[in-house]
Amino acid sequence: MAYQKLTTRAENYSQWYNELVVKADLAEQSAVRGCMVIKPYGYAIWERIQQGLDARFKEKGVQNAYFPMLIPKSFLSREAEHVEGFAKECAVVTHHRLKNDPEGKGVVVDPDAKLEEELIIRPTSETIIWSTYKGWINSYRDLPILCNQWCNVMRWEMRTRLFLRTAEFLWQEGHTAHATKEEAEDFARQMLDVYADFAENIMAIPVLKGVKSPNERFAGALNTYCIEAMMQDGKALQAGTSHFLGQNFAKSFDVTFLNKENKAEYVWATSWGVSTRLMGALIMTHSDDNGLVLPPHLAPIQVVIVPIFKKQEQLDEILQKVNPLADELKRRGVRVKVDTADNMTPGFKFAEYEMRGVPVRLAIGARDVEAGTIEVARRDTLTKETLPIEGIEEHLVALLEEIQANIYKKALDFRLQNTRKCDSYEEFKEEIKKGGFLLCHWDGTPETEERIKEETKATIRCIPLQREPEQGKCMVTGKPSEGRVVFAIAY
Amino acid sequence: MAYQKLTTRAENYSQWYNELVVKADLAEQSAVRGCMVIKPYGYAIWERIQQGLDARFKEKGVQNAYFPMLIPKSFLSREAEHVEGFAKECAVVTHHRLKNDPEGKGVVVDPDAKLEEELIIRPTSETIIWSTYKGWINSYRDLPILCNQWCNVMRWEMRTRLFLRTAEFLWQEGHTAHATKEEAEDFARQMLDVYADFAENIMAIPVLKGVKSPNERFAGALNTYCIEAMMQDGKALQAGTSHFLGQNFAKSFDVTFLNKENKAEYVWATSWGVSTRLMGALIMTHSDDNGLVLPPHLAPIQVVIVPIFKKQEQLDEILQKVNPLADELKRRGVRVKVDTADNMTPGFKFAEYEMRGVPVRLAIGARDVEAGTIEVARRDTLTKETLPIEGIEEHLVALLEEIQANIYKKALDFRLQNTRKCDSYEEFKEEIKKGGFLLCHWDGTPETEERIKEETKATIRCIPLQREPEQGKCMVTGKPSEGRVVFAIAY
Repeated sequence: MAYQKLTTRAENYSQWYNELVVKADLAEQSAVRGCMVIKPYGYAIWERIQQGLDARFKEKGVQNAYFPMLIPKSFLSREAEHVEGFAKECAVVTHHRLKNDPEGKGVVVDPDAKLEEELIIRPTSETIIWSTYKGWINSYRDLPILCNQWCNVMRWEMRTRLFLRTAEFLWQEGHTAHATKEEAEDFARQMLDVYADFAENIMAIPVLKGVKSPNERFAGALNTYCIEAMMQDGKALQAGTSHFLGQNFAKSFDVTFLNKENKAEYVWATSWGVSTRLMGALIMTHSDDNGLVLPPHLAPIQVVIVPIFKKQEQLDEILQKVNPLADELKRRGVRVKVDTADNMTPGFKFAEYEMRGVPVRLAIGARDVEAGTIEVARRDTLTKETLPIEGIEEHLVALLEEIQANIYKKALDFRLQNTRKCDSYEEFKEEIKKGGFLLCHWDGTPETEERIKEETKATIRCIPLQREPEQGKCMVTGKPSEGRVVFAIAY
Repeated sequence: MAYQKLTTRAENYSQWYNELVVKADLAEQSAVRGCMVIKPYGYAIWERIQQGLDARFKEKGVQNAYFPMLIPKSFLSREAEHVEGFAKECAVVTHHRLKNDPEGKGVVVDPDAKLEEELIIRPTSETIIWSTYKGWINSYRDLPILCNQWCNVMRWEMRTRLFLRTAEFLWQEGHTAHATKEEAEDFARQMLDVYADFAENIMAIPVLKGVKSPNERFAGALNTYCIEAMMQDGKALQAGTSHFLGQNFAKSFDVTFLNKENKAEYVWATSWGVSTRLMGALIMTHSDDNGLVLPPHLAPIQVVIVPIFKKQEQLDEILQKVNPLADELKRRGVRVKVDTADNMTPGFKFAEYEMRGVPVRLAIGARDVEAGTIEVARRDTLTKETLPIEGIEEHLVALLEEIQANIYKKALDFRLQNTRKCDSYEEFKEEIKKGGFLLCHWDGTPETEERIKEETKATIRCIPLQREPEQGKCMVTGKPSEGRVVFAIAY
């Protein structure tokens, strides 16, 4: 079996991505339009994302729960902005039974089993959750409520791409209820920090923390905080959002609490989520023309050991060196795999682990055993060196940290190199074609933002939380601005 | 706040169950007919079930993956028996868009957005998975495939009860593909053993391992293995199933592989699953009139420590004893909670932890601190004793194991006491009303089984894997039988 190469990023970035997702065994299209199959290797990475985030949520006092996947149609209309933003493209359940086709051709929908009210597969769960919270909240003593659910959601997207935009996707959605505005807003910010911390320290994806302009806000939110990442083609990808919802959903679902003075007040809310879209961000931040590149802190397999052998005796001899090494690495918390399969050549295995982005690959043959050496290959730099096997554990543990730091730095350098100020709209129209983040003055109006989007496809990715105050003039209208915002073409 | 008592089991078993599920904060009805909300405490128990099973699956080489929730209607018709068993009562998606009501009343289904082919929310995923496996399998080298998914499924049940029978429920479904009949059948049996081991050793639920009669088989299976548990009201509950599917799905979806002789053969399949129904089994096996009783191996909180104090200084003093104890327990792997909340009385807390089934409750006040003692209360026996705090960790670790063993034994004794032989159908009709498992001779025909079900509501729960061969006569028809099968009224 020859290993087929990927289309290079330079040739066709979009095709490179699509091929990589399939060849690295991450996901594939399914028989259902717009829905993906997440393959075991892709799912193993998603599980690592889940576990890492879940532990961080729990540290914040968040508990998991589960709410129904189906939402009564009428719920969606309760929050006026929400329905505008979400209710339109979604999967609608209208019947609850099939029956045998009277003409004998399989099964047909039973017209007698029409639902009185249609049900929608959740595109997000604010409505069903706030209708539930109404029963949970009476007094300030019941607050805060800090719930999260890991689940599937569905949005009927017209143009889909694996991980980036699919009709069904997996995510977590946190929904919290608080007694005060300050506490809710603070919690929304805390969760943004959790996302940023995870993205940067585990996924090695540098992110800009910011707040969305009103146009890009979540439907029903007063404020949407976000983390924005830059992909290798210079496009932006929103990697996570945390919303301060004010009292909108509490009012829509009539959720009040008695405060310490025994007076009824509406409850304050947040919601926050990240999805399998993070898999797309991961791929497009680090990978190269040879395939996936995984940050060691996230990789399901951090070190793979490939014994090079022809006969069983050779393998046995090599394993006498390899097994204690693998055990010692496991003891140190390293996720290690020893690949002793005899139906693939070492070369094929090397290519496969390279495609799958395993951070470190060790190879060891009979001659290495004699010489007391082992070959160490780094996925990030594609470099190899032969080292004494004695004491290699120390080296590997340090190497994994070095790789983690290196790929983060590489991604950060790329973002910094591709972030620039732009003060003229004429220049902007040219510059935006080159990709990257453009820091520009904007007059703060939706109209100007809309015009820029129509004319250039660029959107305001965020108003950075940490921006330098700078008096300036909107590049389009010349009206005053108090600081630069981040424009980019986005996924 | 006075703590409301449960209806007792003797008064009304069914009402006791319904009240317990809500009062122990496990789950509640949602606004969507037949769909439940799993509350944080209930979900924490489910997470423990998930983690325990997931680790066991992975030890068997199973990998997690994710397949679409929507299934094209035509897929369901491919496997003839399967559609009979599953396709009928299910949620049917017919449209993919809503629009604003022209009359201004919220949103309505957009008739222009009708799907060409209706999609079904998965009642189980054999069809979508085998349509996917077709693309994954070419040669014997691709086998076995051992995949599992944790997901939601939907079956439009008419009469629903929290955890036991809900329209939407959570489960895991494993789907494996093998080169030989023997390997597939063996794997189905292995997974049954995994379920039985988990049920007995973690959930403390004694189970009978057996095989289903043809009437009770999974739609599309050649053999359905099951674990059956006995609830406290003498009814049976099927706690898990593992199916040997033969080549049925491979044939329906045309999935073949080239064997070592380069000849095409159909692939052999298994599927196996347990669901949130296990929560129902857990509740009804161990709980009492004071609420939930959790086996320590499963309990999210194994030991709760309640300091008894009036003023902050008292609490501080008590915590000087309690915190090191909690730390030491954690170090030994005990899941411990210290409840320092000052807005509930100790009595209220005691009742609450009793309702929630926390295995061990410790109480400690100022006088205990002086005397160097602590009160230890067992949830299973509702007994209390005051012990020296010195060295209490040892005692608690041993106590948790004792409780685990005790509640298992209690449940096993109950089952043994309520399992009896019955050789006359007249007697059977009376005996079955008392509940329990009846071991009877049966002629092996679906007709006899059907008749018994119609006349008594009892079904064959299983043909035990370990049954003594015993020549006998069918209690209904007098025809020969080679061993007894288990009859019961089932949930």
